Order: sequence, then C-alpha cells, then structure tokens
Amino acid sequence: MNIALLGFGTIGSGVYELINLNKGKFGSNFTDLESRKSSPVITKVLERDITKDLGDSVGVVVTDPKEILEDDSIGLVIALMGGMDFEYEMIKACLKAGKHVVTANKAVISEYFAELLTLAEENGVVLRYEASVGGGIPIIGSLKEEMKINRVTEIKGILNGTTNFILSKMTEEGAGFAETLALAQSIGFAEADPTADVEGYDVSRKLSILSSMAYEGIIRDEDVYKRGITDIRAVDIEMTSSLGYVVKYLGHSILDGKCDVYTTVEPVLFKEVSMMSNVNSEFNIISITGDIIGELQFYGKGAGKDATANAVVGDALYILNIVGEENLPRPLRLNRNLNKMGTGLFKGKYYLRANIDAEENLDQVLTAVETVASRKTVIVNGNSVYVVTSPIAASDFNEMAEKLRESVPEIFYARIYE
Amino acid sequence: MNIALLGFGTIGSGVYELINLNKGKFGSNFTDLESRKSSPVITKVLERDITKDLGDSVGVVVTDPKEILEDDSIGLVIALMGGMDFEYEMIKACLKAGKHVVTANKAVISEYFAELLTLAEENGVVLRYEASVGGGIPIIGSLKEEMKINRVTEIKGILNGTTNFILSKMTEEGAGFAETLALAQSIGFAEADPTADVEGYDVSRKLSILSSMAYEGIIRDEDVYKRGITDIRAVDIEMTSSLGYVVKYLGHSILDGKCDVYTTVEPVLFKEVSMMSNVNSEFNIISITGDIIGELQFYGKGAGKDATANAVVGDALYILNIVGEENLPRPLRLNRNLNKMGTGLFKGKYYLRANIDAEENLDQVLTAVETVASRKTVIVNGNSVYVVTSPIAASDFNEMAEKLRESVPEIFYARIYE
Repeated sequence: MNIALLGFGTIGSGVYELINLNKGKFGSNFTDLESRKSSPVITKVLERDITKDLGDSVGVVVTDPKEILEDDSIGLVIALMGGMDFEYEMIKACLKAGKHVVTANKAVISEYFAELLTLAEENGVVLRYEASVGGGIPIIGSLKEEMKINRVTEIKGILNGTTNFILSKMTEEGAGFAETLALAQSIGFAEADPTADVEGYDVSRKLSILSSMAYEGIIRDEDVYKRGITDIRAVDIEMTSSLGYVVKYLGHSILDGKCDVYTTVEPVLFKEVSMMSNVNSEFNIISITGDIIGELQFYGKGAGKDATANAVVGDALYILNIVGEENLPRPLRLNRNLNKMGTGLFKGKYYLRANIDAEENLDQVLTAVETVASRKTVIVNGNSVYVVTSPIAASDFNEMAEKLRESVPEIFYARIYE
Repeated sequence: MNIALLGFGTIGSGVYELINLNKGKFGSNFTDLESRKSSPVITKVLERDITKDLGDSVGVVVTDPKEILEDDSIGLVIALMGGMDFEYEMIKACLKAGKHVVTANKAVISEYFAELLTLAEENGVVLRYEASVGGGIPIIGSLKEEMKINRVTEIKGILNGTTNFILSKMTEEGAGFAETLALAQSIGFAEADPTADVEGYDVSRKLSILSSMAYEGIIRDEDVYKRGITDIRAVDIEMTSSLGYVVKYLGHSILDGKCDVYTTVEPVLFKEVSMMSNVNSEFNIISITGDIIGELQFYGKGAGKDATANAVVGDALYILNIVGEENLPRPLRLNRNLNKMGTGLFKGKYYLRANIDAEENLDQVLTAVETVASRKTVIVNGNSVYVVTSPIAASDFNEMAEKLRESVPEIFYARIYE
C-alpha cells in the first residue's frame, strides 16, 4: 500500500522525512512481514506550489487531486494542507474512494466531525486525527483508551502554543502584548494573521474535538464561549504576579449530569506554585478526568514540525498495522444530544483592570462590579483601577464586563482558578 | 473466553467490580460482535484466604492453581497476588498453558522481564503489565507507541505514591519523617513494612522496567543506584524550602550514546516553581524524552484501587480485542547489551545537613566536602551544619557522603535539580 501526502508545508516535510527518508523508526514497525520487507512510502504529493523542493523524493508532485483519488495503489492519504473547504472536500473524496485518512486539520475535524466519522465507517476505512489536538501529545489516543472504561466528565488544558509562548514571554520579561506578538511572528511562533490563536478559535476547535469525543455528542467551535487575550498588558502580568498568580490561556469543559456541557476559553489566573502555571513557551498540557481513573494530565510540545509529524506518522502506522484485520476498532459515537449551557458552572474571584481616564470611569467600574460581586481589593494607580472580587459565576462576570466595556473600553479581566 | 483472577486484594476487587459488576464500560467495548453479546467475565478466583467475601460473585474461589491452569475455558489470567516466587511461577505456568496474562507485579516483571516476554511469544500469547508502573498512568502503552518512531533517551519521574505522600505532607505541615510515615501507614498509604517504598526498591523496579523497554536491553533493579529518604528531617524541608526548593523522590535514567545507561533513585530538590515540585500526595508524574517528539510528561494517580484496576482492565480489554487477529503486535526486544555506568552523568549543586554533636564533626564535614566541591553556603545552627556546594557529579558526591557517614552518622543530602 502506498501513501499520498496532501500539502508539503512544515509538518508535511516532517512527515516526509519520517516516512520516506527513514529519519525515525517508522520502517521497522509493521506487524505483518510483507510491510516490514518493503515498508510503505509516500509516492505522491499534492502541492499547488510545484516549485517546492521535495529533496531526493521517490514521490512525484501532482497538482490534480484525481492523480491521487484514482490511484488504486494509494490506500492512505495524509491531509496536511490546512484551511477549510478544499481539505474538507479532499478528505471526503478520499474516504469515499475507500482510502484511509490521517489529518492534523482541527478546523475540518471540529466542523465536520460526525459526518466524516460516518463516512469513514460507511466506506470501511479509518480516519485518524491525533495531531489535530495538542501537537505531539498523544491525547486523542489516550482519551479513546480511557473512554473504554471511564465516563469522562471534564477536560481542561493549555491548548495553544502561540498564546502560551506570548504569555510566558510577557511573564518572564515584563514585555507588552503587541511587541511579544511581533516577536512570536518574527520567529515563526505566530502567523501573520494571529486571529485564530489570540482570539481563541484555535483553542475552541481543539476543545470542541475533545469535548465531542469525551461527551459523545457534538460540541461545535461556535458552541464554545471564548474570549481572546489581546487586551492583556504588561501591567496585568505585573499586578497578578505580585498577587502570586500566573496568567494562562485555558480551554475548559465540564459535563454536568448526563447531557449538560459547560465550556469556556479565556485567560485564567493560576497560583504560581501549580502545575499549570509551570507549563511554558510552546508546551501544552491537557487534563482529562474520568470516574474510575481520576485525573490524568498529558504534557508535551503542542506544535512544531517534528512533534506534530510524530503524531501524524503514529496515526499512519496505526492504520497500516490494522489493515486487513477482521475487526476494525469500533468507531466513536457522537449521537448524544448535549445541552450547551454556557459558562455558569465556572466560578472564581476575578481580577479586573480598567482605564479610568475619564472622570466618571472609576464610579462606573465600581458600580458595575458591585452589581454582581463584592469587591475585595481596589487599587487606584495612575489612570487605572485594579479590582479583585469575591467569588462569582463566570457567566455573571462576563455579562457585567462586556456591558461595562461600552462605557469603559479599555479593560482586562481574568478569573482566578480554584 | 473466560478470565481468571489470581488474588482478591484491593486491586483484585477493583478489577472484579469493573469486569464482573460492570462498574465501568468494560462490557461495551469489544470489537467483535460475539464478545459484545456476552462479554467475558471472571469465572474463577485463586485466593488462598477462602473466607474472603467475593460479594454476589458468579465466579468461584479456588485454592488449587490447577483449577485455572487446566481449565480450557479460561484464556486470560489476571495476576494480582503480589510478592515474587509464587506469582512468577503462576505467570510462567499460565503463559506455557497458552493463556494470555495481565499483571501489575513490578517485582516479577523487572526481575524476569526478558524471560517472560520470550515465553509469551513462544506460546503465541500476550503479556501485558501497564499497572506495574505508575498505577493508572498509561505510561507503558504510551512509551511503546512513542518507541515506534522515537529513540527514547531519558526517563524520569516521581514514581512512588507512598514517598510522595510522605514528602508532600512533611512539606505542607512541617511534620517529621517518622510521624508522617506512621500517618501514611494508619490511612493505608504505606505498608506495615515500608522498606520497598522508603528505601527505593519500588521506584527502582519501575525505573528498571521503563529503562529496559526504552533502551531495549535489560536494566535490573540491582543495576539502579538507589538511596532512601529515611534520613530526611523536618528541618531539611524547612531549610530547603527557605532556599526555594521542594524535595521530591526522583527516579531518573539516561541513555548516553548507544549503550551507556546512567540510573539513579534519590531525593532531589526542584525549584518551587516547576512542574515536578507541584506533583503532590499519591500522584505520580513520568517524563520520557524522544529524539523526534521531544519531552512528554504523564501525570495521574500512581496507586489506589480504582486507578490501578483501570490500567489492569485496559490491558485485559486490549488482549480480548486482538484475540484471533492474524498479526499479533511485535514483541519488545530487550537484547541490546547495555553498560551500567552508575550516576556520573547526573550533576548539580548539593544540599547537605550533618549533625555536629561531636567536637570534631564540623571539621570532618567541611573537609570532606572540600575534597570534591567548593562550598558555596555554610550555615551552623545549633547541633547541625548546612552546606550548599558548587556543582558536582552525583557519583563523586555520593562516594564522599557515604564515607563521611562513617564518622558523622547523621546526615541528609539531596542534589539540586538542574
């Protein structure tokens, strides 16, 4: 069986090195003797930029998808183009053509999860997507394993390397958000358009995939409450740090009862002495809680060429090793009707900074806070007020804060994790 | 296929609940329809204490091993008796009788690893031992997965729940070692004879299993340098804490070059703001480093009935799902000749406390330290001296300290992790 690769970007080239250039131990890990003798290689690469260097490739660059879809020697397609519509169409076409698919595309998986799983099952092939969440962290496989015995009721984690790099750098160096984002962009840790990372879409897609799997129903990206980190300033890091906290960008979902799901993606304050606050730079951590196993946490590189390629190639190996077996693994069921309940179950004290340049601002801030919580600490310093509140439900604080933003535009707030 | 259970202790009863009393989701996770219709159950329990309550068991207690070995309806044996010789003989006999085996027995696996793997392969059956390391943490399976692509060169972790509970409690409450050990014993977190835990045998067995797997050769328990934690006193916690450190009991091995393996099990000081120092109570953490994936860390309950039973039943499910498949997973190879190199590769500053009741002790301590390292900090307080040294190889410090112990018996020391 041959392999086709869709896209030859950073991860694609990493996958190519592992499979075709034998950089890892891919070639020596097949259970059946036939594959061990002549281990499968990538024979075709779909890449619209035909000037790209594929090194001493045994494969050929093709620009027409049909060259892959209609090639019966290709049994496995690795989809790493990124983006949405074209990759979605390609994955669908490959599954329909009876080809196994491995992808790292979190946008496509989170948007079309149930449809693609059904399509794979109908066509007797396997769809794998380990690299779509947590880069090199084996979270998809581990979650599936634990779900065989456990009812998983909670998922939380630092799921985005770019924003964790930015927040870690700001914390280490007291730097501002804009300059740190620019630094991240200059060294390839953030994209030219950083929206998906800093506004939470990347995290909410990953959280939607894990939550859909764990709670066995569909939680879409748009079902997840999310709030970006673009409002954070060096002074917030300084102030929260002096209180003993570290700012992290957390994705968090809870299954309450049988069908009620609470989700949030937002900046959260962890105690300086905690595991979460010591996950730095591009590293990710993902925690899952099951009724038998208790809490498990998985830590590793959430991005990067080699780590992500490792996860992709792990999926490919898995598929190549089960080909021809009588009983394929049971497909996931995503047919439970889940209620999307918002953020009301997440509770904690809040840290709030607001600009009080205008005379009436201080009053507006304190009045707004008092409508929902009692204020425990208030510090006025220069043109800013800093408030730490009593414990309050996230839904109530969020609503108050977004209303406050209409009259006091420059605010940042984060829940203190309990 | 039926299942037999050897031993009905804490974990055994947890396994029984998951499989026979359907506490988890075991019964609904078989890939082939036959098993799904009438999922395998435990039909016999070998237990020498026949007065034990098996609840409303469908199984029967047997006292004669032959009842299991010669019962052809039993295809899978779960060995949870603990101890060494009898369980080793039973596992061997079961494999030879063509029965798959799942065990949590780290002593047996670490001592007879290669022999038992070979025996399983020769008899066309599978031996699984996920629960032998890290309790509920899926480290054995994850390590195997990563090894398919990576060369793993380093393993480290907090691998013993009892000692981590003791050290965490001492740190939280400023309590002494003896009283905290007694507390741990009274609540069932430490055994009546705590030697295996507090002297490092439990950790070194786990480290030997992981290291043998990762480096593909045999590292035995007795190949691992180990030092217990019984010398630690409340004052050590207080002093190292004031320096910003937390004491953890660390197992650590490194593969250097192709065949040189360095191992150590000893108390180590981690910065208060680090992941390791925030792993508390009975929780464990295990870090593995591969050449492609980088560092991965796995965190969870290292002991306890449900978490450990979860790992055991996961192994059982794995086996039940691959029965009848044409290609069994490739067995591990443990045939590389590894050189056991001691502790020389582990380096760091050292914290040392010594009792200086006798007049000549202070001189003896300072002179001894100066033979191997320069001393950076010396504090004399009451009848003790506290020293922090310059960086030094563990092998050199260990040798010096054990010689010093001849003249100054009451000492405690720990490397500062770098």
